[in-house]
Amino acid sequence: MSANLRLGSGGEFDQLRRIFARLGRTGRGLGDDCALVRVGRTWLAVSIDLSLEDVHFRTAWLSFADIGWRSAAAALSDLAAEGAEPFGLLVSLGMPGNGRGRVKRKAGAAVEIMAGVGAAARSVGAYVLGGDLVRSDRYLVDVCVLGWTVRPVRRDGARPGDGVWVTGALGGAQAALQALAAGRRPPPALFRRFARPVPRIAAGRRLAALGARAMIDVSDGLAADAAHLAAASGIRVEIALEQVPCFRSVHRHVAVASGEEFELLVVLPPGFTDRDARSFRVATRVPLTRIGCCVRGSGVRLTDHGQAIAPPKGFDHFPAG
Amino acid sequence: MSANLRLGSGGEFDQLRRIFARLGRTGRGLGDDCALVRVGRTWLAVSIDLSLEDVHFRTAWLSFADIGWRSAAAALSDLAAEGAEPFGLLVSLGMPGNGRGRVKRKAGAAVEIMAGVGAAARSVGAYVLGGDLVRSDRYLVDVCVLGWTVRPVRRDGARPGDGVWVTGALGGAQAALQALAAGRRPPPALFRRFARPVPRIAAGRRLAALGARAMIDVSDGLAADAAHLAAASGIRVEIALEQVPCFRSVHRHVAVASGEEFELLVVLPPGFTDRDARSFRVATRVPLTRIGCCVRGSGVRLTDHGQAIAPPKGFDHFPAG
Repeated sequence: MSANLRLGSGGEFDQLRRIFARLGRTGRGLGDDCALVRVGRTWLAVSIDLSLEDVHFRTAWLSFADIGWRSAAAALSDLAAEGAEPFGLLVSLGMPGNGRGRVKRKAGAAVEIMAGVGAAARSVGAYVLGGDLVRSDRYLVDVCVLGWTVRPVRRDGARPGDGVWVTGALGGAQAALQALAAGRRPPPALFRRFARPVPRIAAGRRLAALGARAMIDVSDGLAADAAHLAAASGIRVEIALEQVPCFRSVHRHVAVASGEEFELLVVLPPGFTDRDARSFRVATRVPLTRIGCCVRGSGVRLTDHGQAIAPPKGFDHFPAG
Repeated sequence: MSANLRLGSGGEFDQLRRIFARLGRTGRGLGDDCALVRVGRTWLAVSIDLSLEDVHFRTAWLSFADIGWRSAAAALSDLAAEGAEPFGLLVSLGMPGNGRGRVKRKAGAAVEIMAGVGAAARSVGAYVLGGDLVRSDRYLVDVCVLGWTVRPVRRDGARPGDGVWVTGALGGAQAALQALAAGRRPPPALFRRFARPVPRIAAGRRLAALGARAMIDVSDGLAADAAHLAAASGIRVEIALEQVPCFRSVHRHVAVASGEEFELLVVLPPGFTDRDARSFRVATRVPLTRIGCCVRGSGVRLTDHGQAIAPPKGFDHFPAG
């Protein structure tokens, strides 16, 4: 078995390390997108992902169906990053009762949220297996996803000389968020990216089959997630900013910091070429772009046309200090 | 596959029915303590259970380690009721940040909660596989449990003529809650029952092996859970109140309404005798008491020395109307 716990930077990270240290033998160590349990010749991959009102979403910005979709997609993205095929998910819902102070509970909100969760599950061939429903002050959606994988791709397999690639384009989620926070409606493509992110399940499975050495989904931001991968693999990740594929009109410095993009950051062997990436794109309809390489060392080095730049900070729910 | 969704009575029940109707093919129907997924010759049993501050626990009444234990035990109890053997669990934690209005976040609370979760997991041979940690207004602990079972015991296998049995003794949780709500410290045995409930894993597995026809854990209250089992099996459950084993000094009418007891309500074939129950007790150290029988019909009939009495209402987070 191997275990997963999401790691923010700083305070949250330290707190989680303390938690797992305390658990001792019962906690199985840190370090992947999913927990993995060997079952015969295959692996059960499991992950859990909590989405809270006013932390991960606002009801003023998203429909309840969007909230459900987004919460499920965030959890499913962890299976994508493991190269796993989802088969089911369980959902805990916290729903304000009629007595909530701020606003009256919207009738049917739980139904709408579950419709969004169900649509996201269906889009990747998974089933809603069960759930729980509790009255709470704010909306909350906690999704536990289950999948199978014959060849799990962890974060720790990258070696010096490997190439670093990313699926799709980055920055859309952050740009949408900035527009919404400023009271503007983002352009449809950006809004869709924020409200209805697509977990890269088929892409993740194909990358696993193509020999991916290490993989992680972009949830904390490209630079922060590259740092997680570098730490797990014991290498340094070098990223050339000018190679990073960005949403149109989104600045590259925004794109590398943008969290909850749910693209895959993947390390492929040196022999994997741009031509292989084109075949991948034909097969999956998902672009795959080389943005850097792995070298001896530690951490992440970002360059902009050869000039080193400071990495942006990742998102952290519990800033230190 | 079969699915689970906890069902309260009244409004919550109706809401969940709407949710699952909306999900259509993706939701796999209602009706068990766990979702079941066939894996070769065995079944994967999965359940999720959300515990919220001020709904399921108060920090004034329980230590953080108690809160963690109790949340994990509640989820593990669903595996017990399926006759399953737990192997792992995942935990989402919501923790107040330093800026919470009411009180300052207690340093180390997450570590204490996870220590309690880990102790509950260890007590039944399971591992903490992963988790998520998010800042929230109130403490929340959502636990997803995973187990294996060769012979799952559902709620729908009871037949007329079968005997209705219950493990342990009831009423302790409710009596402890009443004392705490009145500002009194409950006697140690009652407090332990409330703070550190023991999921009946070994008992549930043995009952499955002994041919249990249907099983459910007592989480909504004996009468309410008997009604769930009766509805799933298409039979009527008759319970003789004077047979119900109660905690010392707890009135029987309190005991049949008391939720979150985490004992097992189990239906056994007519041939299962008090002598078999004594052997069961010797093997598991858990008492097993016959409290009634299954007959043709529907619903639950409670009698007190032969006189019919009105069933108490189960707990419902979303009262109708």
